[in-house]
Amino acid sequence: MGGLAFRLLLLPFLAPVATTAVNPALRALASLNLQIFPTFQPEEANNYSIYYFDQKIDHFGFYNTKTFKQRYLISDKYWKTYDGVILFYTGNEGDITWFSNHTGFMWDVAEKLKALLVFAEHRYYGESLPFGDDSFKDSKHLNFLTSEQALADFAELIRHLKRTVPGADGQPVIAIGGSYGGVLAAWFRMKYPHLVVGALAASAPIWQFEELTPCGVFMKIVTEDFKKGGTKCSESILRSWGAINRLSNTGSGLPWLTRAFHLCSNLNSEDIQRLKDWLSETWVNLAMVNYPYPANFLKPLPSWPVKEVCQYLTNPYMSDSLLVQNIYQALNVYYNYSGQTRCNNISETTIGNLGSRVWGYQTCTEIILPFCTNGVDDMFEARSWDLDKYSDDCYKQWGVRPRPSWVTTLYGGKDIRSHSNIIFSNGDLDPWSGGGVTEDLSDTLVAVNIPDGAHHLDLRPSTETDPPSLQLARSVELRHMKQWVSDFYGNYRKQP
Amino acid sequence: MGGLAFRLLLLPFLAPVATTAVNPALRALASLNLQIFPTFQPEEANNYSIYYFDQKIDHFGFYNTKTFKQRYLISDKYWKTYDGVILFYTGNEGDITWFSNHTGFMWDVAEKLKALLVFAEHRYYGESLPFGDDSFKDSKHLNFLTSEQALADFAELIRHLKRTVPGADGQPVIAIGGSYGGVLAAWFRMKYPHLVVGALAASAPIWQFEELTPCGVFMKIVTEDFKKGGTKCSESILRSWGAINRLSNTGSGLPWLTRAFHLCSNLNSEDIQRLKDWLSETWVNLAMVNYPYPANFLKPLPSWPVKEVCQYLTNPYMSDSLLVQNIYQALNVYYNYSGQTRCNNISETTIGNLGSRVWGYQTCTEIILPFCTNGVDDMFEARSWDLDKYSDDCYKQWGVRPRPSWVTTLYGGKDIRSHSNIIFSNGDLDPWSGGGVTEDLSDTLVAVNIPDGAHHLDLRPSTETDPPSLQLARSVELRHMKQWVSDFYGNYRKQP
Repeated sequence: MGGLAFRLLLLPFLAPVATTAVNPALRALASLNLQIFPTFQPEEANNYSIYYFDQKIDHFGFYNTKTFKQRYLISDKYWKTYDGVILFYTGNEGDITWFSNHTGFMWDVAEKLKALLVFAEHRYYGESLPFGDDSFKDSKHLNFLTSEQALADFAELIRHLKRTVPGADGQPVIAIGGSYGGVLAAWFRMKYPHLVVGALAASAPIWQFEELTPCGVFMKIVTEDFKKGGTKCSESILRSWGAINRLSNTGSGLPWLTRAFHLCSNLNSEDIQRLKDWLSETWVNLAMVNYPYPANFLKPLPSWPVKEVCQYLTNPYMSDSLLVQNIYQALNVYYNYSGQTRCNNISETTIGNLGSRVWGYQTCTEIILPFCTNGVDDMFEARSWDLDKYSDDCYKQWGVRPRPSWVTTLYGGKDIRSHSNIIFSNGDLDPWSGGGVTEDLSDTLVAVNIPDGAHHLDLRPSTETDPPSLQLARSVELRHMKQWVSDFYGNYRKQP
Repeated sequence: MGGLAFRLLLLPFLAPVATTAVNPALRALASLNLQIFPTFQPEEANNYSIYYFDQKIDHFGFYNTKTFKQRYLISDKYWKTYDGVILFYTGNEGDITWFSNHTGFMWDVAEKLKALLVFAEHRYYGESLPFGDDSFKDSKHLNFLTSEQALADFAELIRHLKRTVPGADGQPVIAIGGSYGGVLAAWFRMKYPHLVVGALAASAPIWQFEELTPCGVFMKIVTEDFKKGGTKCSESILRSWGAINRLSNTGSGLPWLTRAFHLCSNLNSEDIQRLKDWLSETWVNLAMVNYPYPANFLKPLPSWPVKEVCQYLTNPYMSDSLLVQNIYQALNVYYNYSGQTRCNNISETTIGNLGSRVWGYQTCTEIILPFCTNGVDDMFEARSWDLDKYSDDCYKQWGVRPRPSWVTTLYGGKDIRSHSNIIFSNGDLDPWSGGGVTEDLSDTLVAVNIPDGAHHLDLRPSTETDPPSLQLARSVELRHMKQWVSDFYGNYRKQP
């Protein structure tokens, strides 16, 4: 019990790949990625300039006066200083160049909105390391990794841009982000409404905290995706856990499983839980990136990858060994679509990098997302949410304990109706939509739901195969943003 | 240059007197006060219970896990759990029992609103000391003294009350505060609108920061009060500076001035600036507490004390020594209304206590209030606002440097129209009204101006001699609060 919960929580919202990193550790990882995926390329070749801004390490105290360099990217190709807008990406848990390359929506709307694009890196990720190589050393150095500090970085950066970029001062700013970055965009509008006229919070699970959402919802949505993916698909996965358990109890079972899953190292009996967690995380990731066209987000994948996976999982009632072999075939869609993977490493689901490691610290402090399964409403083995065990694991790994109520105290939980101008977009296929805002809360706190959408599909670049529901969602988002801009100029120019 | 600015900024919004303190240092001060003012009594004998709540020393980081006991007071005499309200005083720079005794308005409206009264002490004041006796030791221990931490204390305390006090959970909360406490009430509604349905921010100079208000406005209002106080009154004070300067340059001038002002210790030439600052602060304090009836706020005083003072200051054109003697008579209204002061101490304007000392730290970090004078629009010697010198003085005294832009970055400066449900009340006579909100910003961000009012007169207990403008102001405030409460219950009971 509890093992899944802990590992799942170490899952980043998404696990970024560092491709243009300067930091040596990141560069090593980047080249590693290139070895794994020789065909990996950013999805768009967008041009930006890279800048650095001196941020206080501690915005909320006066004892530590040190600063660090926050990286941010700027593109002014389509910017008009007369009636334009500043689109400000509130960077999340990874290298900001990766987000800039995977947020095609901003590049796509830049011309229509005459927008200056700014991508601000989140502290402790990418190159924006408060203590350089020592940033992840211990809980003392990690102390300044919080959402409040990150939002304060964004606020200071916006004021800096307004002071120093000619033409920026009189312009409205819109916060945009996806996933944890979408949560930050929404929170930024809530806490700094004087700095941004609105926020597009894509796939932002702002209610995945405390008891705001039942802990089982997330895995239930994953399961529903697999139900939709093919007949008996989720049932096959549900039965696979028993098959693995039974096989691992036989004398020859462990070497057999090692071979069946093409694992890089031999399984022993203590690894079985990790094997099952690795499988669970793979199903979760597939649900998140279940896009309608071939894409390379977490991994290079075909269109509708869950459907692809489910082609191998049509019969739950075969023998344990045949069922496991089918599971392996299904996994191959995710782990070996490029056909070049020699073996599978169960300690890796997406690509490991610094970003995803330190995200674990955030999920052990502020970002406490309760998950649970029951094996009835979902296709996973039953696990309850065990905060005490979770807390002990956090303490062991990071030397800190979670404060699960704090985010609700600070950002308001479900009582956010007094705010305004936030678009909450969610894809119905995205497991994170369960903790998202999927109904309008007011005229200006609006929900945009994308029936065929996975994780922040709307932020991806537009393609010729975009479903109509996606096109509609983007046009609604654009309409709201234009309204905020024209409201701003209406009020602004009215002033003396 | 710059001296006045620095000393003025050490002026607390108000300087509380500790009467029921348990902390030994405070008790010593309390007994000292009783010696100075044997007749001192709280203005009302209100009954409350005293509680303590464990607060995190650092809400914004996870490294320091220590807690301290925050004191708060509760009165439930008139509370109704069915349709009542929680009035939450956002404590400011001093002992909370003092504020509870000087905020008669809350006690007066408790029955009408069926209100639970809560008075929350501000960290680092009164008994709410994060590190006990070490709290003021150095900038490391003072690091957690910020408005953000104080607001987070209030937020955690409200959630604690809602969890633990039967009946509190379904009730609306209204933040109330005066002066810096009023600033906190307004900021609290801005940052935590999910926890309070509205705020009454009395005499809250939220715009006395950066360049939001011209630095000369404050002293200009002080001067206008003295102009209204009597013919030639402000002119007499304006001319007194030259008289003091000339006298201090003569051989016998210093001992003469010592005797003329009945000072406790002999003046030497380096003390002249401090003497003039002491006089300036006295005029400022008189303007702040220029109440229409006898009151004991900073000092026991007659009704309309400025008018009383101005009776001695009708002729600016007499000899230097006669002018100074009249100034002394005028001062006596403030320093010796009780007739028992033997000598004046120029390092003391109000009653020194721990509270006012550590307020100096806050005015050296976040609460940077630029002041200046020019001797033309005001009755003071000309002094410009010199941030560099100010910063150096702060560094010398506290080991920290001010961040004058931070409050605007964090709380929005003048761009606060997206917020709602805040009453900004100001007395026209109060010098702090210059940095306050004195015009409606929207239907729900309303200004209540009290023509004859001094510093948060409306929060004082009602008296039979209250001017009609004050009665009207209080009834407007009450009407808004009732509206917030009924809106809350309207929405709340509509929910499933």
